[in-house]
Amino acid sequence: MKILLNNNDLNEALYSVSNLGFVPTMGSLHNGHISLIKKSLKKCNKTIVSIFVNPTQFNNNRDYKNYPRNGRKDLSILKKLKVDFVYMPNKEHVYTFKRKSKIKINTKDKILCAKYRKGHFEGVIDVMDRLIKIIKPKKIFMGEKDFQQLYLIKKYINNSFKAQIFSCKTIRDKNKLALSSRNSLLNKNELIKAGKIAKSLLLLKKRLLKNNINKVLINKKKELSKFFNISIDYLELRNVYNLKKTNKIKNSRLFIAYQINKIRLIDNF
Amino acid sequence: MKILLNNNDLNEALYSVSNLGFVPTMGSLHNGHISLIKKSLKKCNKTIVSIFVNPTQFNNNRDYKNYPRNGRKDLSILKKLKVDFVYMPNKEHVYTFKRKSKIKINTKDKILCAKYRKGHFEGVIDVMDRLIKIIKPKKIFMGEKDFQQLYLIKKYINNSFKAQIFSCKTIRDKNKLALSSRNSLLNKNELIKAGKIAKSLLLLKKRLLKNNINKVLINKKKELSKFFNISIDYLELRNVYNLKKTNKIKNSRLFIAYQINKIRLIDNF
Repeated sequence: MKILLNNNDLNEALYSVSNLGFVPTMGSLHNGHISLIKKSLKKCNKTIVSIFVNPTQFNNNRDYKNYPRNGRKDLSILKKLKVDFVYMPNKEHVYTFKRKSKIKINTKDKILCAKYRKGHFEGVIDVMDRLIKIIKPKKIFMGEKDFQQLYLIKKYINNSFKAQIFSCKTIRDKNKLALSSRNSLLNKNELIKAGKIAKSLLLLKKRLLKNNINKVLINKKKELSKFFNISIDYLELRNVYNLKKTNKIKNSRLFIAYQINKIRLIDNF
Repeated sequence: MKILLNNNDLNEALYSVSNLGFVPTMGSLHNGHISLIKKSLKKCNKTIVSIFVNPTQFNNNRDYKNYPRNGRKDLSILKKLKVDFVYMPNKEHVYTFKRKSKIKINTKDKILCAKYRKGHFEGVIDVMDRLIKIIKPKKIFMGEKDFQQLYLIKKYINNSFKAQIFSCKTIRDKNKLALSSRNSLLNKNELIKAGKIAKSLLLLKKRLLKNNINKVLINKKKELSKFFNISIDYLELRNVYNLKKTNKIKNSRLFIAYQINKIRLIDNF
């Protein structure tokens, strides 16, 4: 496993690599990341994993500072998986040029997390565009837990390298909680709570088939907020192809974002 | 540069290495560490740097959690220096066995930081003893900023490997503040303050030659506490060979520990 700490290292290492698979991460790797990496190792000649906690996608500095970091453990996991390359740049290596025009998201896309985390997806799109230009992968592997992120990256990134984006299923723990690096910020009770919320929404999905969707969601939102003492940003059913609000079950997903003791979690079902 | 993430990696890499130099660190490397590493590179065939934030030497958990960590930057620095090996173990790799008898420090050594940070040096001695057993270096390089640490390690570690310990001069920034990873926790004003305190004590050293030492130190302690709004644990002149309190300038050092906005800094002159 080669550790690439800057773009010179990277260019040298990737010089003659073809069919490169890329798994972008912010570190604190969990089984969700590992499933993406395994897919890349299977589908590609070589696999590169980036570890970069991108400051521009955090809409508040406390969240950026508190974001879990564990370089040693990450390297240990990646080595065991026999990943070919780990790219660990600093800010200067990624933000090598200034954009002529700012990245902007259309008003109709300012929904779900884009509504609640101002500037977040602009930062995500910016960094992904830069990483793709630097790494030039053939295939990119990303998780469905961040469904809106996947949707916006596919829509907004000028994919002139024709990198193929693979979306991979959300991995859940035994309590059904979607794996997320942020889960490490939760204590035991909060983890149990978050698992119960996920289970409750998995059950709800089935109930939605026979009921008035809007009413059920409004009631569920109230019920969860009260029962688990959480603050829910949104609980919405949306079409998977355009992320428009819908009351049809077909081709739809149920999206939630909530804060449990100031830690913000998202999920979709 | 080889990154050794566990003891198997380490044993394999060090199998045929002789005259190994070892620089133990908790990461967040600064020019103080770099001066130790350069010395080792000069004096030894091969150099190993460990990065391990040892939990047992923190006397409070908040301090452990807040201790600055920056694995990527550390690796980048070590690579540029052309260090041979970086050992980044986790707790399980270092704490491989339970001690039959607890590490204990004599009452007469419970002075300076040993008095104020209960259990700290027991943790330091424990981890250093373990690291030396695991790495088996010929030479160890440590900074004089942690003078008491050096003193206690030399005194308490069963050095059956006969590793030679080299103490290296404290490196200061342009404001005379002793370099420390904890400095990164200070804001601009606090850094300026800490620099002024160091300068003030460097000047004091000269004044001590002609004055009543006890009185001068008591006054200086009051003056610094008040003027800089800091809480001083100790400001004491001690003999360098036995760390006993002294009022002789010869073979003595002036030791200080203080807290500036809850960040504890130490120095000696």
